[in-house]
Amino acid sequence: MSGDRGAPVCVPAAVELVRERGDLRLVLVGAPEVIEPLLRELRANGESGIELAPASQIVGMDEAPREALRRKKDSSLRRAIDLVKEGRAQACVSAGNTGVLMATAHFILRPIPGIDRPAIMSAVPAVGGHTHMLDLGANTSCTPEQLCQFGLMGSIVTADLHALERPRVGLLNIGEEDIKGHALVQEAHRLLSATTLNYVGFVEGDDIFTGEVDVVVTDGFTGNVALKTMEGLARMIGGAAREEFSRGAVRRMMAAAAWPALQALRTRLDPRRYNGASMVGLNGIVIKSHGSADQFAFRHAILTAVTEVERDVPAQIAAELARQSH
Amino acid sequence: MSGDRGAPVCVPAAVELVRERGDLRLVLVGAPEVIEPLLRELRANGESGIELAPASQIVGMDEAPREALRRKKDSSLRRAIDLVKEGRAQACVSAGNTGVLMATAHFILRPIPGIDRPAIMSAVPAVGGHTHMLDLGANTSCTPEQLCQFGLMGSIVTADLHALERPRVGLLNIGEEDIKGHALVQEAHRLLSATTLNYVGFVEGDDIFTGEVDVVVTDGFTGNVALKTMEGLARMIGGAAREEFSRGAVRRMMAAAAWPALQALRTRLDPRRYNGASMVGLNGIVIKSHGSADQFAFRHAILTAVTEVERDVPAQIAAELARQSH
Repeated sequence: MSGDRGAPVCVPAAVELVRERGDLRLVLVGAPEVIEPLLRELRANGESGIELAPASQIVGMDEAPREALRRKKDSSLRRAIDLVKEGRAQACVSAGNTGVLMATAHFILRPIPGIDRPAIMSAVPAVGGHTHMLDLGANTSCTPEQLCQFGLMGSIVTADLHALERPRVGLLNIGEEDIKGHALVQEAHRLLSATTLNYVGFVEGDDIFTGEVDVVVTDGFTGNVALKTMEGLARMIGGAAREEFSRGAVRRMMAAAAWPALQALRTRLDPRRYNGASMVGLNGIVIKSHGSADQFAFRHAILTAVTEVERDVPAQIAAELARQSH
Repeated sequence: MSGDRGAPVCVPAAVELVRERGDLRLVLVGAPEVIEPLLRELRANGESGIELAPASQIVGMDEAPREALRRKKDSSLRRAIDLVKEGRAQACVSAGNTGVLMATAHFILRPIPGIDRPAIMSAVPAVGGHTHMLDLGANTSCTPEQLCQFGLMGSIVTADLHALERPRVGLLNIGEEDIKGHALVQEAHRLLSATTLNYVGFVEGDDIFTGEVDVVVTDGFTGNVALKTMEGLARMIGGAAREEFSRGAVRRMMAAAAWPALQALRTRLDPRRYNGASMVGLNGIVIKSHGSADQFAFRHAILTAVTEVERDVPAQIAAELARQSH
């Protein structure tokens, strides 16, 4: 258990979930001397559905993947992925270092045959529901073939998780220039157009939110910048709203009067409801929680893992790739 | 006069401004048969401070720069830039096709010696004020040297327009991976570190809004995606707020009760106040208004041009470049 907040967030989220869902078994991977007191505190020591797997090391949030792979063989992050590899767990959920999680998952679980590079995929809010975006930071630069594979994986996962018949797949680009994006995006466009996907062509940054596309494909650099830009802007707007509604007694009364609407708005845009990014394209399910996730957000990441296990997403991707290659 | 709305937006904005500011002279470039009736309607025919320069063609919003450069030699867009070149106008403001505007400005005004590629720069809202970002779409891919030049130009313009002594310049990157962005960004980082700029290093998408950096440097692809992502998210949040505050009579009463705070919030985040992107690095001032700008937004774009004229931004950039090369 790592992440910015570690076990004090992960353990209560896990205990809460196994109590709600009798069918759920969660393995808490980390230092027993940290986890056990938390379980005792929650009166969950010996709770059926909770198991403890010891790990003596923790990967720091700033550690380099190569170093961590070499030196942290008994980290909670690595042990959790080992459990998936060994079939003792059906999914790994981590709030830890994204780079190390991806590198370790890649090294231990390996990509699905036909997938060059796994990608990080997440839902983001959109009008009428949400849009799925990938890659969000695993691959800073991508070949056209890799972008095309992202489209395929995004389409399969979205179709499956949301019962969409033919998810609309768009390729992120800019619309201002005559050449409409660099050669790489042009080539990916050509490849995607030749697939059987419901490829709707180029989309721009503002199209992410209109509800007119289900999957937005981009490289990990652009995707990560777009995601962080969303987070930053949403936080700034939230802060400005709090400020405007707390300028003196009258404004605070206004906020009280408008509370139900403000609360509904807040719930609707709550980023915690979108916590839990999938590392798609691996022989196994790995879900990345935001490092700063609280209990509610981490709970959502675990539930994302549960859904992917129920749907057996890696098998779906492998089957679709096999079908395409025949 | 082009853009999505054309003369019916540009002419009233111009008339309003010359009436407010006696020192301002605006040349309206376009079809006299369109502009003159509008001026008559506004009782501004013969208004001192308003001049008309005829142009018989209009560049379409989807036209390709190369085609437009060849075939639209009497377009309003080109004529307006010609006026700057001839010294008959001190700046050009256009809501037209961005690609054509940049290509035409590049072709006619030429880049300042020492600048490889002009860039599109705009203010975006941030905590406590705003941040300036460039490039926002002129150059889909950039060399490290070009990114470094963007940092220099951004710093000069920001220092000058906002009386900042040493604007903090950041380079947009992603923080998740061990390699921290691709080789190109790494090399730009090295170059920027070696300048006399107040370079604060890598920033991520969410740092755009925290007020901890004044200038955010990135390539035109990433910058345009980030900008459009902001526009799309802000629009979605605005739409969600309107929806939540109009669900039935009670919610509408809440909105009425909270009106001053909601209105203050709206004003604060109003994208029209940020309309008017500078095409920096040219021998002349060219301001790009959003294509869909209304009168208020277009007015802001004109005022951005006025400020740049007063500060003689291109001369400042040229002088700083000359200083650096000695």
